[in-house]
Amino acid sequence: MQTHLLRKLLEDIHQQRTTPDEGLEVLRHLPYENLGFAQVDHHRGLRQGFPEVVFCQGKTAEQVCQIVQRIRATGSAVLATRATPEISAAVQAMFPEAVYHVQSRAIVVRSDQLPLTKGVVLVISAGTSDIPVAEEAVVTAETLGSTTERLYDVGVAGIHRLLDRREQLFQARVLIVVAGMEGALPSVVGGLVSVPVIAVPTSVGYGASFGGLAALLGMLNSCAAGVTVVNIDNGFGAAAAASRICGR
Amino acid sequence: MQTHLLRKLLEDIHQQRTTPDEGLEVLRHLPYENLGFAQVDHHRGLRQGFPEVVFCQGKTAEQVCQIVQRIRATGSAVLATRATPEISAAVQAMFPEAVYHVQSRAIVVRSDQLPLTKGVVLVISAGTSDIPVAEEAVVTAETLGSTTERLYDVGVAGIHRLLDRREQLFQARVLIVVAGMEGALPSVVGGLVSVPVIAVPTSVGYGASFGGLAALLGMLNSCAAGVTVVNIDNGFGAAAAASRICGR
Amino acid sequence: MQTHLLRKLLEDIHQQRTTPDEGLEVLRHLPYENLGFAQVDHHRGLRQGFPEVVFCQGKTAEQVCQIVQRIRATGSAVLATRATPEISAAVQAMFPEAVYHVQSRAIVVRSDQLPLTKGVVLVISAGTSDIPVAEEAVVTAETLGSTTERLYDVGVAGIHRLLDRREQLFQARVLIVVAGMEGALPSVVGGLVSVPVIAVPTSVGYGASFGGLAALLGMLNSCAAGVTVVNIDNGFGAAAAASRICGR
Amino acid sequence: MQTHLLRKLLEDIHQQRTTPDEGLEVLRHLPYENLGFAQVDHHRGLRQGFPEVVFCQGKTAEQVCQIVQRIRATGSAVLATRATPEISAAVQAMFPEAVYHVQSRAIVVRSDQLPLTKGVVLVISAGTSDIPVAEEAVVTAETLGSTTERLYDVGVAGIHRLLDRREQLFQARVLIVVAGMEGALPSVVGGLVSVPVIAVPTSVGYGASFGGLAALLGMLNSCAAGVTVVNIDNGFGAAAAASRICGR
Amino acid sequence: MQTHLLRKLLEDIHQQRTTPDEGLEVLRHLPYENLGFAQVDHHRGLRQGFPEVVFCQGKTAEQVCQIVQRIRATGSAVLATRATPEISAAVQAMFPEAVYHVQSRAIVVRSDQLPLTKGVVLVISAGTSDIPVAEEAVVTAETLGSTTERLYDVGVAGIHRLLDRREQLFQARVLIVVAGMEGALPSVVGGLVSVPVIAVPTSVGYGASFGGLAALLGMLNSCAAGVTVVNIDNGFGAAAAASRICGR
Amino acid sequence: MQTHLLRKLLEDIHQQRTTPDEGLEVLRHLPYENLGFAQVDHHRGLRQGFPEVVFCQGKTAEQVCQIVQRIRATGSAVLATRATPEISAAVQAMFPEAVYHVQSRAIVVRSDQLPLTKGVVLVISAGTSDIPVAEEAVVTAETLGSTTERLYDVGVAGIHRLLDRREQLFQARVLIVVAGMEGALPSVVGGLVSVPVIAVPTSVGYGASFGGLAALLGMLNSCAAGVTVVNIDNGFGAAAAASRICGR
Amino acid sequence: MQTHLLRKLLEDIHQQRTTPDEGLEVLRHLPYENLGFAQVDHHRGLRQGFPEVVFCQGKTAEQVCQIVQRIRATGSAVLATRATPEISAAVQAMFPEAVYHVQSRAIVVRSDQLPLTKGVVLVISAGTSDIPVAEEAVVTAETLGSTTERLYDVGVAGIHRLLDRREQLFQARVLIVVAGMEGALPSVVGGLVSVPVIAVPTSVGYGASFGGLAALLGMLNSCAAGVTVVNIDNGFGAAAAASRICGR
Amino acid sequence: MQTHLLRKLLEDIHQQRTTPDEGLEVLRHLPYENLGFAQVDHHRGLRQGFPEVVFCQGKTAEQVCQIVQRIRATGSAVLATRATPEISAAVQAMFPEAVYHVQSRAIVVRSDQLPLTKGVVLVISAGTSDIPVAEEAVVTAETLGSTTERLYDVGVAGIHRLLDRREQLFQARVLIVVAGMEGALPSVVGGLVSVPVIAVPTSVGYGASFGGLAALLGMLNSCAAGVTVVNIDNGFGAAAAASRICGR
Repeated sequence: MQTHLLRKLLEDIHQQRTTPDEGLEVLRHLPYENLGFAQVDHHRGLRQGFPEVVFCQGKTAEQVCQIVQRIRATGSAVLATRATPEISAAVQAMFPEAVYHVQSRAIVVRSDQLPLTKGVVLVISAGTSDIPVAEEAVVTAETLGSTTERLYDVGVAGIHRLLDRREQLFQARVLIVVAGMEGALPSVVGGLVSVPVIAVPTSVGYGASFGGLAALLGMLNSCAAGVTVVNIDNGFGAAAAASRICGR
Repeated sequence: MQTHLLRKLLEDIHQQRTTPDEGLEVLRHLPYENLGFAQVDHHRGLRQGFPEVVFCQGKTAEQVCQIVQRIRATGSAVLATRATPEISAAVQAMFPEAVYHVQSRAIVVRSDQLPLTKGVVLVISAGTSDIPVAEEAVVTAETLGSTTERLYDVGVAGIHRLLDRREQLFQARVLIVVAGMEGALPSVVGGLVSVPVIAVPTSVGYGASFGGLAALLGMLNSCAAGVTVVNIDNGFGAAAAASRICGR
Repeated sequence: MQTHLLRKLLEDIHQQRTTPDEGLEVLRHLPYENLGFAQVDHHRGLRQGFPEVVFCQGKTAEQVCQIVQRIRATGSAVLATRATPEISAAVQAMFPEAVYHVQSRAIVVRSDQLPLTKGVVLVISAGTSDIPVAEEAVVTAETLGSTTERLYDVGVAGIHRLLDRREQLFQARVLIVVAGMEGALPSVVGGLVSVPVIAVPTSVGYGASFGGLAALLGMLNSCAAGVTVVNIDNGFGAAAAASRICGR
Repeated sequence: MQTHLLRKLLEDIHQQRTTPDEGLEVLRHLPYENLGFAQVDHHRGLRQGFPEVVFCQGKTAEQVCQIVQRIRATGSAVLATRATPEISAAVQAMFPEAVYHVQSRAIVVRSDQLPLTKGVVLVISAGTSDIPVAEEAVVTAETLGSTTERLYDVGVAGIHRLLDRREQLFQARVLIVVAGMEGALPSVVGGLVSVPVIAVPTSVGYGASFGGLAALLGMLNSCAAGVTVVNIDNGFGAAAAASRICGR
Repeated sequence: MQTHLLRKLLEDIHQQRTTPDEGLEVLRHLPYENLGFAQVDHHRGLRQGFPEVVFCQGKTAEQVCQIVQRIRATGSAVLATRATPEISAAVQAMFPEAVYHVQSRAIVVRSDQLPLTKGVVLVISAGTSDIPVAEEAVVTAETLGSTTERLYDVGVAGIHRLLDRREQLFQARVLIVVAGMEGALPSVVGGLVSVPVIAVPTSVGYGASFGGLAALLGMLNSCAAGVTVVNIDNGFGAAAAASRICGR
Repeated sequence: MQTHLLRKLLEDIHQQRTTPDEGLEVLRHLPYENLGFAQVDHHRGLRQGFPEVVFCQGKTAEQVCQIVQRIRATGSAVLATRATPEISAAVQAMFPEAVYHVQSRAIVVRSDQLPLTKGVVLVISAGTSDIPVAEEAVVTAETLGSTTERLYDVGVAGIHRLLDRREQLFQARVLIVVAGMEGALPSVVGGLVSVPVIAVPTSVGYGASFGGLAALLGMLNSCAAGVTVVNIDNGFGAAAAASRICGR
Repeated sequence: MQTHLLRKLLEDIHQQRTTPDEGLEVLRHLPYENLGFAQVDHHRGLRQGFPEVVFCQGKTAEQVCQIVQRIRATGSAVLATRATPEISAAVQAMFPEAVYHVQSRAIVVRSDQLPLTKGVVLVISAGTSDIPVAEEAVVTAETLGSTTERLYDVGVAGIHRLLDRREQLFQARVLIVVAGMEGALPSVVGGLVSVPVIAVPTSVGYGASFGGLAALLGMLNSCAAGVTVVNIDNGFGAAAAASRICGR
Repeated sequence: MQTHLLRKLLEDIHQQRTTPDEGLEVLRHLPYENLGFAQVDHHRGLRQGFPEVVFCQGKTAEQVCQIVQRIRATGSAVLATRATPEISAAVQAMFPEAVYHVQSRAIVVRSDQLPLTKGVVLVISAGTSDIPVAEEAVVTAETLGSTTERLYDVGVAGIHRLLDRREQLFQARVLIVVAGMEGALPSVVGGLVSVPVIAVPTSVGYGASFGGLAALLGMLNSCAAGVTVVNIDNGFGAAAAASRICGR
C-alpha cells in the first residue's frame, strides 16, 4: 500500500465518497489467500517482480497441487523446486502444460507475459557432478525471464579450461559459479571479471567436505573481493539473486 | 591480454615490425610489480574496475606503507581495510592526503578520476552495535565511486521502524543489510523489495552466536529468495559486491 | 511426600496408631511401578499436573503397549509421541479408544477429568513444511487440557501476512512459534506481543541449515527479549512448557 | 496502532474534524525517535509492558548515555545490561540516580510507576561461579517489577541440597535455573515442579564445555518435559521471559 | 617378553644350551597369527586378561568367521560386538555353541576357564530407549567374567526412582551409567557414591542431541568429580573398563 | 540417611523418647552449611570418601577464603584447584599451612587422618608441555591419599621411550595418561596393560587441535578397549577417578 | 605451452612460415575436449604424469561411459573411482578389458606404456575394517605405475604387530597409513621411519568418530614431524600423492 | 636395534666374548636421556635423518635451555620452533651461535655436517599475511639441509601472477603452498605440476575462516589429485615432510 494510494483513500473518505468502514476494510484487506495450511502470497509479484515459488520439500503432493492451482488461477507463471517425480506427476495430471526438469527437480509453467531481464546470466560449474545444482539455477533464471548460458566442468585443477573461455566470462551481466569440494572456482573467476559473481557451494564431495561445508566456507572466505554466496545446493537462490541484479 | 591486442602483436611480428624476442617479452611481461613480500597488482584496475585493496590484518605498518606507495605511484585511489591506528599513523605520515575512518578502521585516498557507479547503495544496520561493519561498507562503497545512504538500528524486534522507511528501501539500487545476533533482518527486507540484497552477518552477540555463526547461518537459510551473503563482519566485501552490481 | 503428610505420619506413630514398621513401609513405598525395562511414574500426575508421556522413538511396539497399559490401568490420559504407524496399530489393537494423529505422529487417549488450563495457546508456523511439528504442539497442548488456535504459513518473507493477524496474536495467553530455515519468525512475533513466546526450531531446510541448527541458533540469539527456545522439532516440549505457563 | 484508534481517526476524517493530511501525518508518525545511530523505541513500553533495554556491548559510553537520556526524558525506568564500569561511570555522571550492579554488570534506574508482576520468580544457581549470570536475572526481574528469591549453589552433584528446598521450589510462579558445566540442574528441577522452568546455560567450565555449549545442548535435550532455554549467560533474557509469564 | 625370561634365554645361550639362531627365533616369534586381512592377537589374553574382541562393523561375515575360528582354535572365549543378524547366522552355522544377544547385537562363546572378576558391576540406564547399549555392557561384562546387576529407566526427570535404590548403588564395585538426551544421570549418581562411575552417552535423542554429542559433552563436563566417559553407544568399552577396574 | 538410622528414629518416636517435631527436625536437617553464595557440603566426605574440592575459576578470592574456612573448621583436608596466585596468596594469608603448587595451580592443606588408597597411581605424560595437567593429577591424587609415580615425555613419536618402561607400567594399580595433540598415547598404553587407563586430553597443540578437541576425540575413539576419558585438561578429575578405583 | 614451443611459433610467424591467424588458432587451441557436460582434459597426462581420473560419485553411468570412451580413444589408461556395481557393469559392457575391483570400488584399464615409478609404496592399515580404503590406494598406485606392498591390521592397540615388521617399513620409498577410530597409527609409524608418510583417515568408527573427523584431526595433530594428511577415506588421493613423490 | 646387530650380540654371548649381564645392559640401554621433565631422543637422528626438534609452546625458557644443552652436547644441529623472544634471549645467552628468526619464531643452530637433501623446496604463499608461516617452512627446510626458493603473494584472485612463474614451479622437487582464507592456491598449483604439493592452511582470515578451518577443509577437499595437507600454520611440519620426500 503505497503513499499515493493511501492519500487517495483518505481523500475519498474526507469527501465522503467512502465510509470509514469501507476504508477500514480496504486497509485490512491484504492481497494473500488463506488455504489453511498455506497463505498464497499473490502480492509478491508486485513486490518482487516474480510470483511466489513453491518449495516442495516437506510438502505433500496434494498441498503442492492446491498451491499451484491458486497461483495458476491468477494467470501467473509457476516454479516449484525440489519436486520429487511423484509430486511432478500429480501436478502434471492437473496442469498438462507443466514441464518437469528431471536434473534440476523443478516444475515449470512459463508465462509469456513476464518481462525479460537484461543481460546474460552465465552459469558455470566446476565439475560434472555439480550440474544438477547448476541446472536448477538455469531453469530458475529462465523461468524468471533471463537469458542464460552454460559453461560446465571448468574446475581449478585444470585452470586452462577456464582461462580459454575468458571472453565468455566478460560478456555476461552476472555469473553464477557452482562448485563442490574445496569451492575454489568463484575466487579465480571473481579475480578475472568485474561483474557480479554469485557463488553456489554444492554438497559434492565426501569426508571432510561435510556435506558442502568446506565449499561454503571457502566461498565465504574468498580472496576475490565482492563474491557473494548462497546456501549449499541452492541453485534456485542464486538465480533469484541474479534476477534481482539484472532488473527488468 | 585480450584477443585484439594479441592479434595486433602477432601481426606486428608477421610484418617484422616486431622481433620474436620483443614479442616474447611482451607476452611475458605481466602488469604487476614485485616487492618481494607482495606482488602489487596494477592490472586489477583494468580487470575489475577498482584498484587493489590492501587488507592490513597480519601485515606490518612498513609493509602496508610500501604497498600504498606503489599504488599511489600509479596515481590510483587507495583503500586499506582493517587498519590499526598505528598503521594509519604510519601511512598518514607518508601520505598526508590519506583519511582514516576510525569506526570502520579504513584508510582512504580518494581519486577524482574514478567514474561514479549508478544508483544508490543503501546500507541498513539492525542495531547500533553493528554500525562499525556498516560503516566499513559505506566507506568502501564511496571510495569505489558509489552514492550511499544509511538506515541504522531498524532490527526486527521493532519491525515498525523498518516498515516506516519502506519508500527509502524501494529507491535504492542495492541494499546492504548488516545484522548480528539472529541475523533476521535481511529476510524481512528481502521480502519487501525486488532489488539485490546483500546480507552481512556481524559478530555482535554472545554465547550461542559463536562469533557471528548464528547470523551467518540465518542469512544463508533466508526464506526470502535471492538474498546473498558475505563473510562475517565483511562490510568491505558487501560494498565491493554492490559496486559490481551497480556497474559504471 | 509433602511436609503435612509427613507430620501426620509421625504423629500417628507417636500416638501408636501406626507401628514403626508400617511407617517405614509408607516412607519406602514410592509411587512408581517397575516393569523391568521401565519404571512407570504414576506420581508424575501429582507432581507436574499431567501424566507421564511415552516417547516412542527407540522403544519396541511391545514396550510401548505395556507402558500404555499400566498408565491406562490408573484411569489416566495417555500421550505417546513420535509413534510410527506400526506402534500406533499395536496400541490401537489393545486400546480402541486411542486416536493416532498422522501428521504429528502422536497417539492420544483423552481423559475428561483433566482440568482445563487457562487461556488460549496460539500455535504459529512460518511455512507449510513446518506444520507436522506445529501439529505435535497442538495435539500435545489439547491433550494436556489447553484450548488452541492455529496460524500457519506466515513467515517473515511476506511480513504483511503476520501483521494482518496482530489482533489474534494479542489475544493468546502463550504463543508457540514454529519455524525452520533461518528461524526469524519468533523475533518478529516477540517484538509485537508482551505474552510468553516459545520458539520451536524445525529441521526444515537444507545445506547450511544443518538439520535445524541454523534455526536453533537464530532463535537462541533472538533480539526480542524474553523469547525462550526448545529442542529442534520439539513441538511436544513447547506445548508442555505452554501448559506449565497456563497453569490450571 | 490498534483497531479502535484507527477507526476513531477515520471517523474524524469522515466528519471533517481532521484533514487527510493530518491523518496521513498521524499514520506516518511512528512512536520512535531517531538519534542517527539508534532509533529509540518509545512505543515498546506500550507493546511489551516494559521499556526498551540498552544492550551496552559494542556501544560507546557516549552512545549509551544519549540513549539513556532519551529514555529518561519520557520518565521511564532504565535497564542497561553488560555495562562496563566505564560506561556505568559515564551514565552515573549524568544520572546520579542510576545504580550499578557490579556482579551482574547492569545499570538500573527504577521507576515507581511500573506495575508489579504476579508471583515470585525464584532464581536458582548450580554453582557459585554461576552467580553473576543469576544476578543479572535477579536485577532484571526486579527492574521489570517482579518479586524475586535466590537459591544458589545447589548443583546435582549434591542433590540433597536441592531436595531439601523442595517447598521453596513449589511456591514460586516461575523458576529460572542457571547452570554451567553439564547443565543438568534444570532437568532435575523440571522433574520436581509443575510451574514454568527457564534454563540458562552459563559459560562456566573449561575444555569440552566449549564456552557453555555443553550446558546449552544439555538443557535443550532435557528429559524433563517443558523446560525452555535461553542463550548462554543470558540472565537478562530469562528474566524477561519470566516477566512475560508472570503478567501484570 | 619380561626381564627374567630374557635373562634366562641369554643364560641358556651363554651356556650353549641354546644356539644364537634359536635365540633369534624366540626373540622374533611374536604371538600373533597372520590371516592376511587380520593379525589375530593371541597374546592379548596374556597382556590384558581377556582375549581379542571382534568388532564386526565394516567386516564381512566371512572375515568374522575366519577370525572367530582362529580364536576358537586356541580354546579361548569369543566376544563379537555390533554383529548383524547375518553375521550372527554365519558364525552360529560354524559354531553352534555361539549365542547371539539380539538387543546388544553381540555374539558370545563363553569359556568356563575365565577367572571371575571381583565385585558386582551395576549397569544403570536413564531410559528404556538406552537399554540396547546397557545390554551391550551387561553381555560384555559377563563374558569378561563379571557379575552384573541391572537398574533401568531411572532418569533424572523422576529423581525419586533413583534415590529409592540408593542401597543398590552403594553395594556395587563399579557403576556403568548409560544415558542419552542431556546425559545428566552420571552426575547425580557420581554425587551419591564413592565407587568408580563410568558414563556411557547414547545416541538416543533428536535435534540438538546431534547423535549423542549433547550427552557426551554433558558427561565430560560432569560436576561430580571422578566420573569417566567412553564413546557414544560404547557399552562394550564401558564394560571392558569395568573389568580392568574389578581385576581378577 | 540410611535405613537403620531411620528405623531407630521412628522407634524412638514410637517409644515417645522423641517427639514428632524433633523427628521432623532431624529428617529436615541436612549436613550442609549455607554461606549464601555457596552451600558447603560437609556430608561429601562421608558419601564419597574425600571432602569437597573447591573449583576456584569464576570465584573471587574472598569467596574461596570463606569456603576454605568452613571446610577447615571441620578439620578436613582442603584441595582448591585452578587457583590463581592471587587467590593462593589470600588463602595462605589466612591458612599458613596451605601449600600452593605453582605448576598445577592447586592449593592444598593435607590431613594426616585421610586413609591411604591402595596401589600406585602412575601418571604418564606424552610431552613436556603436558606436565602442568599431569601435575594437577599428581597433586590431587596425593591429597586424596594415593601414592603416585611420574613418567613424563614418552609420547608415541618415539615409542621406544615408553616400551623401555613397560615394567613400571605393569606395577601400577591405575594409569593416568595425559596427552595433547593427537592424543594417541592412551591407545598404546591401553594395549600394553590390563589395569585401568584414564586418558586426559590436554589443550596442548595449535590449529586443528581446536583447544584439545583433537586429543579428546582421539581418546574417545581409542582402539584399546576399556580406556575411559575425562574432560580436556582435567587432571583433577582423572585423579578423583583413580581414587575411586583404588578404594580405601 | 612451454617457452621453447612459444618461441618456435613466434619465429615461424616472423619467418612468415605461419600466418597470424594460424598462430592465433594454435594459441587458442587448448588440449581438452568438450562433451558439453564435461571437459575431458587430455593435457593432464603431459602436465602431471598420469591421465585424468574419473570420480564417479554424482555422475550417471552414461556420463561415466562417455568420459571413459574419450580417454580410451587416446590410448590412455583409465582409472574410475567410487564406481557402483551398476556403473562398472555399464563400463565393462563397452570396454571388456576394464577390471572392477569390488573392495576398492575402482574401474581400471591398465596401459603397458605407463612408465613405472621408482621404489615401493607400502600401504598399511590399522584394522580390517579399513581395508577397502587401503585397497583403493593399492589399486590406484598400481594403475599409476607403482609397485605396492600391503601390511594390514597392525593398529596401535597391539603395537608389537607393527614393531615386528619394522624392516618392511624401512625398505619402502613411501608409506601410506590408513586408520580410522583415533587415527594414531601414522604417528607411531612416522616416529619409526625417515621416509614420507601419508596418513589416510577413514570413516571407520562410530559415535564421536563423527564419520572420520576424529581420525582426521588426530592425524593433522600428529606429534611425528612431517606426516601429511589427505581427506577422509581418500585412498585414491594418498596414492596419487605417493606417485608424485616416487617420480618416474 | 637392527637384526644383524642383534645376531652379532647373541653370537658374542654364545662365544662367551660377552657375559649375559653385559648383553642385558646393551639390550636395555636405549639411546635417550632422561631430564625428568623430558626424554631427549638422541636416537632420532639415526631413525629419521634429523635431530629432535624442540616445540617451545607450553615450555618454560629454562626447560628449553636444558633440552637444547643436551642436544648441543651431542654436537647436533638445533631447531626450536614457536619460540618467544624471551625464550630466544635465554637460549642465545647460553649459545651465542644460536640465530633467532623473528618472523618464523624459530631458533636455529646449524650444523655443517648435516648432508644436504636433493632438489629445491619451493615455498609459495598466497598472500603477504601468510609469510610468517611460509618463513617457518623456509627456515625449517634449510636447517634440515634443503635448498629453498620463495614465491610470495601469488594468490588465486590474480591468477596471472602465478601462471607467469610456471617455469619456477616446474623446476622444484617439492612445493609447499601456504594459504589462508579459502585456501584455494594448492588446488591450482597441484593442477599445474606433477611433483609433490604440500598444502599449509594458515589462520589468516576472519569470521567464517574460523581460525584457519576454512582453508584446512578447502585443502583437504582439493580437486587436484595428490595434494597432501598439514595442520593449520604448521610451516614446520610441511618442511619436515618435504625433507622426507627429498631424501639424502
